[in-house]
Amino acid sequence: MAAEAEDTLPDTGLSLDYGNFMAPRLPEGGVDPELLQGPMVRDFARAHATVQEARERGEMGFFQLPYQRESAAAVRDVADSFGQWFEDVLVLGIGGSTLGTLSVRDALLGRGWNELSLEERDHFPRLHVLENPDPAAVSQVLDRLDLRRTLCNVVSKSGSTAETMAQLLVVEGRLRELVGEEKARGHLLLTTDPERGDLRALAREKGIPALPVPPNVGGRFSVLSPVGLLPAAVTGVDVDGMLDGAARMEARCAVPELPKNPAGLLAVLLHHADRELNLPIHVLMPYTEGLRSFRLWFQQLWAESLGKLRRGDAGDEPVGPTPVGAVGPVDQHSLLQLLMEGPRDKATIFLGVREVDDPVLIPNLHGERGSMAYLGGHTLKALVDTERKATAEALRRAGRPNLTLEVERLDAPAMGGLFMLFQIATVYAGALYGVNPLDQPGVELGKELTYGLLGRQGFSAPDLLEPDPRWSV
Amino acid sequence: MAAEAEDTLPDTGLSLDYGNFMAPRLPEGGVDPELLQGPMVRDFARAHATVQEARERGEMGFFQLPYQRESAAAVRDVADSFGQWFEDVLVLGIGGSTLGTLSVRDALLGRGWNELSLEERDHFPRLHVLENPDPAAVSQVLDRLDLRRTLCNVVSKSGSTAETMAQLLVVEGRLRELVGEEKARGHLLLTTDPERGDLRALAREKGIPALPVPPNVGGRFSVLSPVGLLPAAVTGVDVDGMLDGAARMEARCAVPELPKNPAGLLAVLLHHADRELNLPIHVLMPYTEGLRSFRLWFQQLWAESLGKLRRGDAGDEPVGPTPVGAVGPVDQHSLLQLLMEGPRDKATIFLGVREVDDPVLIPNLHGERGSMAYLGGHTLKALVDTERKATAEALRRAGRPNLTLEVERLDAPAMGGLFMLFQIATVYAGALYGVNPLDQPGVELGKELTYGLLGRQGFSAPDLLEPDPRWSV
Repeated sequence: MAAEAEDTLPDTGLSLDYGNFMAPRLPEGGVDPELLQGPMVRDFARAHATVQEARERGEMGFFQLPYQRESAAAVRDVADSFGQWFEDVLVLGIGGSTLGTLSVRDALLGRGWNELSLEERDHFPRLHVLENPDPAAVSQVLDRLDLRRTLCNVVSKSGSTAETMAQLLVVEGRLRELVGEEKARGHLLLTTDPERGDLRALAREKGIPALPVPPNVGGRFSVLSPVGLLPAAVTGVDVDGMLDGAARMEARCAVPELPKNPAGLLAVLLHHADRELNLPIHVLMPYTEGLRSFRLWFQQLWAESLGKLRRGDAGDEPVGPTPVGAVGPVDQHSLLQLLMEGPRDKATIFLGVREVDDPVLIPNLHGERGSMAYLGGHTLKALVDTERKATAEALRRAGRPNLTLEVERLDAPAMGGLFMLFQIATVYAGALYGVNPLDQPGVELGKELTYGLLGRQGFSAPDLLEPDPRWSV
Repeated sequence: MAAEAEDTLPDTGLSLDYGNFMAPRLPEGGVDPELLQGPMVRDFARAHATVQEARERGEMGFFQLPYQRESAAAVRDVADSFGQWFEDVLVLGIGGSTLGTLSVRDALLGRGWNELSLEERDHFPRLHVLENPDPAAVSQVLDRLDLRRTLCNVVSKSGSTAETMAQLLVVEGRLRELVGEEKARGHLLLTTDPERGDLRALAREKGIPALPVPPNVGGRFSVLSPVGLLPAAVTGVDVDGMLDGAARMEARCAVPELPKNPAGLLAVLLHHADRELNLPIHVLMPYTEGLRSFRLWFQQLWAESLGKLRRGDAGDEPVGPTPVGAVGPVDQHSLLQLLMEGPRDKATIFLGVREVDDPVLIPNLHGERGSMAYLGGHTLKALVDTERKATAEALRRAGRPNLTLEVERLDAPAMGGLFMLFQIATVYAGALYGVNPLDQPGVELGKELTYGLLGRQGFSAPDLLEPDPRWSV
């Protein structure tokens, strides 16, 4: 790598260390470095071209989101105008409509945001995310909220998601009881397709404000569209910073040279781990509570994009890795035993944060106790970082491949960068697996059966098998 | 099964339907019903005997916890005496010390407990669980809490867990600054081994109140010991009801006849799925937010108990299924695509709740919109149940084995029953896999490296490999 070439690549603040994937550093089963010189470079060149063609056909709108600043400014305007009227924002949505927002909340607002005072929140509203139509969860949120002071952001790309429509009907019903039909509409903000679907039709007909999700941006790739930007903007998150970070990562991951492309390396190494090394389980383990929801965002992205029937001349082959989300160091006390001594079917991605605002000094107390003495004088930050490095080293010694990503700080640009990095890695991986990373045909059957059972027009009720007394207890 | 025999078994309110595991109901790859008549019955008889012997040797203390009512009454007394003095309870712990408490909180208090008013909480304190020594997470909790009105329950069986000791030192340091060294102790309540370890020594020397974890009860089996009972009792959870439900499940799962034993069936079918059907990934998918943390409790239990090197004459074999926790119907929008069309390497356990307090009626609004019309008049409960059944049926049609557990209501007896069911299934499964479900030797190397890096006496610092510039970006 020439230094000049390096200098032209934008600084994303992100590093990827994949030494613990490589032979002979990984004592057994590591990747032959020669592969990285030849075959993997060629595989990646093909994947890069496939993605480039799909972009040029306009199928992968998420790549463009960091550059659509007018759209982002429009979202901010809406957020500003609404934000000042409401004390609470309630997001109704599921899956890709909420996982990005939950990730941003955990990383940038902190999980205790709603317990802060108005001053501590800088006069920004509380944020509630109702993913699940579970009646107890819905009741708990609605009982706690004063709907008269609440903005409901209803998020569904298709404008027809069953769970989200059901939540909307329940919430709108309550609002109508409280403030009447007309005023109820003033509490709604819809985020949906710019043209199609029932939410868009509702917006047009009843004059409900609505934000567009670009037609070529699917749910799990939509966090940098109004889907994720509105809840971020309304709670004061630095939306431009997030888009700046995403743009730098987009440029960084566009380069066709594999060794310079972190998204390409992630895709190539994890695809190779699954298909060649028999490691189909991919564990993402960030060492910070701030990325607790991000691990679930990754899980959806990786599972729903890559878990597919690959069409082939010899028939369809089911492919796709199984993502598992973990949080360090907590899950050292849950999954690590399995990662160390269980079947060799896993690759682990560690994610660390280099700088934090307050590393929190551990005081020197109880120095006469062996289990406490060594901790005093270190910081909690050092403890967490040390555990991450020790765990990666323990896995390496046990011959278990692992990668380490680090970001500079857990701020808005880093989050934008992480979203973009994994989205790009996912579409490269889709090309390597030979599947379309943008569809999800496997979820249709369950939807159709649900529609039939609930009596939706045009769907017939299936006969569900009764429990067989021989096989139940 | 004779009706008389059935009548003598306690009613746990739990059902298990495993029809979608069986051939020919499962169109391909189902379990041959003949196996359930012969080989599986014999395998289970052996596993049952192995567990029985371990119980008799006193190694599996968790079986006895529902019957130790004097110990539970003592916990309640401590909770009562402390509870009235404190507005907030902060639990410091990690892994098995907190996953049970988080499960009880989600299921029985609701996730919004801390946002309720004192009256709505019936004057019980708020509950904060600090699992992670992550400095940002610790700062956020400590900034929000008034430590002068907070009880800190420090939970560590060994009395030496690094993350928990670090949290204790930080919190005790803050308390000393606020109220002085002596009064600081009055805010601490330690839950640890009755004899050994630094926390017990501290309790003895400084007169800090402490509750015992029975020596033969390990962290991941400790939710029904003072580890889980104290936080439950102090927030007004019906601890006796939880133990009653656990006792009934214990009796139900003690019967040696496989077809009558739900824990035995879970263990035998899931072990068979892994070892014979090549389905090593076990997905637990409760259809209720109330079991959001329970899925993580299960993940720890199943992973850390069964993911082991199995000692054999021909060498050690790494074994153990990989548990994945999901929440329905949310994760239909995340993992379902992979479950339906990805590799055939998974078995799914659905978990439903038959009765809820308020099923929440969906009002008839926007009846002219096809995606909303069919929902009006149903309840959210019906939507969630229907989605669960439709998803199980869709998986069955796709030839993907799945089981369904149902509990009557999500109350204290049901939670006690669920904890006991999965704990017993785990030790039966341990016997079937031929591993010790109670140890976790694989986590030691990472701990030792951490101690060495932090300079703990008696441990030498390892040389960590520097990132190799060839393999980093």
